[in-house]
Amino acid sequence: HLSCVTLEHQHLRYNPLRDSWVLVSAHRMKRPWAGQVERPPEEHIPRYDPNNPLCPGNKRANGKGNPDYDSTFVFENDFPALQPDAPDPGSDQDPLFQSKAARGVCKVMCFHPWSDVTLPLMKKEEVVNVIDKWAELVEELGTIYPWVQIFENKGAMMGCSNPHPHCQVWASNFLPNEPALSDRCQRAYYEKHGEPMLLQYAKREAEKKERVVVESSDWLAVVPYWATWPYQTLLLPRRHVLRISDLTTEEREGLAAIMKRLLTKYDNLFEVSFPYSMGWHGAPTGPYLKEDNSHWQLHAHYYPPLLRSATVKKFMVGYEMLAQEQRDLTPEQVIHLCTCFHTEQRT
Amino acid sequence: HLSCVTLEHQHLRYNPLRDSWVLVSAHRMKRPWAGQVERPPEEHIPRYDPNNPLCPGNKRANGKGNPDYDSTFVFENDFPALQPDAPDPGSDQDPLFQSKAARGVCKVMCFHPWSDVTLPLMKKEEVVNVIDKWAELVEELGTIYPWVQIFENKGAMMGCSNPHPHCQVWASNFLPNEPALSDRCQRAYYEKHGEPMLLQYAKREAEKKERVVVESSDWLAVVPYWATWPYQTLLLPRRHVLRISDLTTEEREGLAAIMKRLLTKYDNLFEVSFPYSMGWHGAPTGPYLKEDNSHWQLHAHYYPPLLRSATVKKFMVGYEMLAQEQRDLTPEQVIHLCTCFHTEQRT
Ligand SMILES: O=P(O)(O)O[C@H]1O[C@H](CO)[C@@H](O)[C@H](O)[C@H]1O
Ligand SMILES: O=P(O)(O)O[C@H]1O[C@H](CO)[C@@H](O)[C@H](O)[C@H]1O
Repeated sequence: HLSCVTLEHQHLRYNPLRDSWVLVSAHRMKRPWAGQVERPPEEHIPRYDPNNPLCPGNKRANGKGNPDYDSTFVFENDFPALQPDAPDPGSDQDPLFQSKAARGVCKVMCFHPWSDVTLPLMKKEEVVNVIDKWAELVEELGTIYPWVQIFENKGAMMGCSNPHPHCQVWASNFLPNEPALSDRCQRAYYEKHGEPMLLQYAKREAEKKERVVVESSDWLAVVPYWATWPYQTLLLPRRHVLRISDLTTEEREGLAAIMKRLLTKYDNLFEVSFPYSMGWHGAPTGPYLKEDNSHWQLHAHYYPPLLRSATVKKFMVGYEMLAQEQRDLTPEQVIHLCTCFHTEQRT
Repeated sequence: HLSCVTLEHQHLRYNPLRDSWVLVSAHRMKRPWAGQVERPPEEHIPRYDPNNPLCPGNKRANGKGNPDYDSTFVFENDFPALQPDAPDPGSDQDPLFQSKAARGVCKVMCFHPWSDVTLPLMKKEEVVNVIDKWAELVEELGTIYPWVQIFENKGAMMGCSNPHPHCQVWASNFLPNEPALSDRCQRAYYEKHGEPMLLQYAKREAEKKERVVVESSDWLAVVPYWATWPYQTLLLPRRHVLRISDLTTEEREGLAAIMKRLLTKYDNLFEVSFPYSMGWHGAPTGPYLKEDNSHWQLHAHYYPPLLRSATVKKFMVGYEMLAQEQRDLTPEQVIHLCTCFHTEQRT
């Protein structure tokens, strides 16, 4: 379907989840790179480090001790960006100096007692435990808070300061910018087309097969048509699912399996533990639980920073910050050119 | 005016230029940092390097030789993300797979023949030459193109691969996301309040004096109330000016002076050549030249990546990418706590 024109020349693509455009320059990977080179991700991490505050049995910054956990372990972030009791700043009348109260909680969740594993290296049942705990936290925090953001910063390149496998869960009394925008876009699409945007999208990508990275009977992972990060992926259930807590037992098992396959491909791409930020977006919670959210479809975004190798990342800087996101290869080139992306076992 | 509440507890602030919110957590600077540490910016750069393709008289990647320039020097980017003749991709009817033609030009502009200077170290007259050239390029490319983005990526941390002082100018046949959003916000404000948003904003900040970094009779630089990057600044003329090409001779001289003062403060903050991405936003051009753009006010954004020191940057990752931008100190703390930010001579 894609003409040579699309593959070889710069063009714009529309992101219907953010109502914005990305500049796709198919030929920019060819330019020489004399810029900053990153340290490759650390590969030799001890299974247990007596000084790591995330390991079982160790003491954290606030003096509290971790239990001797053997599966997942959730605790309150010792330096939370959101706290439940922050006072209302009392807004200025001036439209140029508007503020609002921000309340919430920040939790940290260890995936596994061992520091030297990552999700793709964990057993499928262990990944299912992580998914069950995600669902539990969304259910629990979602009774009060309108938005529960599950996210994982993996690798030092992504601002993660601890190699122990973990993610964070920040719940807030407000709908943050990104989910608010996504909600608006999905709602408008649903009103116009009568079906959830991402349900239609998954069907079409499954037919086209031009951007599919991995798929199973329940799940699909694609480099979205509108990807901004070079190896960005979108992970979607095939069934209409509003929230992670709505997944069936089978779907959770399927999710663990497809996550392992997707993340193994990432690790194989440049033969390193692949850095990324990822997170889940599902229908809002709290007061929104009483509303119709049929326009929503659960999905995870994976945003990896690398571009050329384990040590050369994509810089989203000048033009991207001030004008528009720009990518240096097409999403189809990612699928067609990176053959190692197709290996399913960790090499 | 600012209550203790605003200064000490997390809250949200509204960005009227982007119609979005930022989470301000005043207390997050206290957390220990065991994460990635950057290489400090290079401080010993030779004035002339025979292998640097930006130096006068040297050969570039495409084999062309640079003239022996002694002021600014502009040339076409050898690996442009935008080219004038890209074909139309021909859009799919499907709303989920929309593409559009992208055409334009990418230019590189050297600020000075020497590699070992930066804008704050250049003579005022030399900075005026840079401003004049910016104005000339906006005028020239703006006859055809709706948007001319001037931007500078400074420092390896900001994806800049050449230490020679330079910026880029990318002109496009479309209004990119960021200026399109800014245009919408400024227009709505103007329609409601009858005065350009940023003209009112500059007046109020000049009165409040809580976030002013440097000011002069014609110009004002503030850490905006809604800043997302820790040391982000907004540089504004005090007069209503639509485009950089509309600046008078006196205003250009005043701009050169205030840029030197602002950038010297940045360099003194952590005692390194401060990395940043910066760029100019002014009223759109090309077909928009015929329209009323009274809602626009010329301004420059400075986005520096550092947070704690010359080697510890702010990571805009997981929560910021998936939910909302979050900062670890207030804009007022930047002004009040960073005393070195107040020094005007390079230390
Ligand atoms: O054009 P340069 O300096 O090679 O490249 C730099 O700036 C561009 C425009 O912001 C970015 O797209 C690149 O990722 C960055 O490395
Ligand atoms: O909470 P952490 O892991 O210390 O910090 C990391 O993730 C946060 C949430 O995305 C970011 O605000 C920080 O800049 C980043 O370093």
